[in-house]
Amino acid sequence: MSQIHKTARGIEDDQNFDRYLTEKRRIIEQYLDEYLPGKDTYPASISRAVRYSLFAGGKRMRPILVLASAEAVGGSEQKVLPVAAAFEMIHTYSLIHDDLPAMDNDSLRRGKPTSHTVFGEALAILAGDALLTYAFQLLAERSKDSLLTAEQQVRAIFIISRAAGVNGMIGGQVVDLESEGRFVDNDILEYIHRHKTGALIRAAAEIGVLVGGGSEEQFKSASRYGENIGLAFQVIDDILDVEESSEILGKSAGKDSRTGKATYPQVYGIIKARKEAARLTHEALQSIEPFGERGWPLSALARRILERRT
Amino acid sequence: MSQIHKTARGIEDDQNFDRYLTEKRRIIEQYLDEYLPGKDTYPASISRAVRYSLFAGGKRMRPILVLASAEAVGGSEQKVLPVAAAFEMIHTYSLIHDDLPAMDNDSLRRGKPTSHTVFGEALAILAGDALLTYAFQLLAERSKDSLLTAEQQVRAIFIISRAAGVNGMIGGQVVDLESEGRFVDNDILEYIHRHKTGALIRAAAEIGVLVGGGSEEQFKSASRYGENIGLAFQVIDDILDVEESSEILGKSAGKDSRTGKATYPQVYGIIKARKEAARLTHEALQSIEPFGERGWPLSALARRILERRT
Repeated sequence: MSQIHKTARGIEDDQNFDRYLTEKRRIIEQYLDEYLPGKDTYPASISRAVRYSLFAGGKRMRPILVLASAEAVGGSEQKVLPVAAAFEMIHTYSLIHDDLPAMDNDSLRRGKPTSHTVFGEALAILAGDALLTYAFQLLAERSKDSLLTAEQQVRAIFIISRAAGVNGMIGGQVVDLESEGRFVDNDILEYIHRHKTGALIRAAAEIGVLVGGGSEEQFKSASRYGENIGLAFQVIDDILDVEESSEILGKSAGKDSRTGKATYPQVYGIIKARKEAARLTHEALQSIEPFGERGWPLSALARRILERRT
Repeated sequence: MSQIHKTARGIEDDQNFDRYLTEKRRIIEQYLDEYLPGKDTYPASISRAVRYSLFAGGKRMRPILVLASAEAVGGSEQKVLPVAAAFEMIHTYSLIHDDLPAMDNDSLRRGKPTSHTVFGEALAILAGDALLTYAFQLLAERSKDSLLTAEQQVRAIFIISRAAGVNGMIGGQVVDLESEGRFVDNDILEYIHRHKTGALIRAAAEIGVLVGGGSEEQFKSASRYGENIGLAFQVIDDILDVEESSEILGKSAGKDSRTGKATYPQVYGIIKARKEAARLTHEALQSIEPFGERGWPLSALARRILERRT
């Protein structure tokens, strides 16, 4: 495992970013909690299933990315919070459906039993459907004092739906499933990673700038940043699956190789995979240089992805 | 079975409406065909699964309702066509997921094998997810020559997502699943019908007026109309399940009683159920009287729902 040597300044930055993450997580979770109907709203089972997966201790990387990206262009947190929350809903829906017996058949996620294990398959499918639908409802909310223009909302919905659909996340999941137990070349591996996790992460970085009121130039910077950290995230994910135990990961480890899934370490070997993750992170950091000091959470996030152990 | 005696005028009206339906179906199917990626777009399997269910010979009731409702307020067909197509995508997604083994476990739909029977469960789940996501992508498309304002798009997306979500279609499906084999009272039966099929049908009638440029008053008329035909549609559906064979219905008949599903005939008996469908249709026809002559396809549609045999 690569060791990263920290200076005193580096450690202080880490602590600052820890506080940043804790604070943003709190804000996002509070927003989601207030937006969704309570556990006892009729029919109670579906609200329970939706809340169970949404509040199962996720890292909230995508919504935090939306907030950090908006911050990088001086956008107000209040304005982007609903959009950030919508990303977490879409991410959670994708996890619930990916874990289903017909898909990855996973019984453990974030250290807890998966939705279908607790609620049964039918309700798990519907809870995923519900979260995807809630995301668009939330993105389309308008009132007299809406902070976003209707144009911003429509553009955000378009970008998110494209990133979540057949040309994005769903396409990646399809190719991933179809590659199980088969020889996977370079191109297919990259297709899977760019689409399955990459597309939504990139969209989160883009949307922050869009809704935060940034320029087209800034949108492109965020887009390149998102693309690179999205790939780095997936490379690290694959490495961790090989290196770590299920206990640490909170999900079934070593699963990729058992199911014959396409992974970076499998195609390139661990050492080259780690180098690739570092290169992608470097690219990401370069793309956000124009944001200057306001881009610090984005750069801290890129570094954190590279260093993560779970 | 109730016989409806037709005058010469009635028969002519029927033929006119048959031509109307054929023409609108053609327009909607052509739009869907052009919008969706071809069968050979990578990854091909998901595009094939999406197209398989979308072009499996549906009646296109919801999109036709959108067009007819827009027509009733003098709205242009060109303007509402994308919105109409989005309704068919959402309807089809719901059918694919409802048919899954974990849900209604149906192997026949519209006379053809269901999605999971042909493509396997994983791809069927993803094809449903893809259609739901495509619907919102389509609703959020904008270009220089967009015919809808961003405000109209956002409001349409909000109404549709609410109708398709936990407070609408998904909620109805949850209660329906949970009521299998249990005693179901009046209130629960009405909840299921109002939500499972009613919510989306009502939204289709509303959206036609909204996007077609109608007034708030006209919106309310369409809303009441949609609510009533939605319920009538479901009552008739339940009756047909008891009365007709699978061959005629193109889906498994008698299934409701075998699985202990809550139905109108079960709670009220066939004769009272037929009377209720007639009453609801009458209510629907009354609510669209203000539309005058331009509302003829809406009134023909309400009558057709009452008379349908498949």
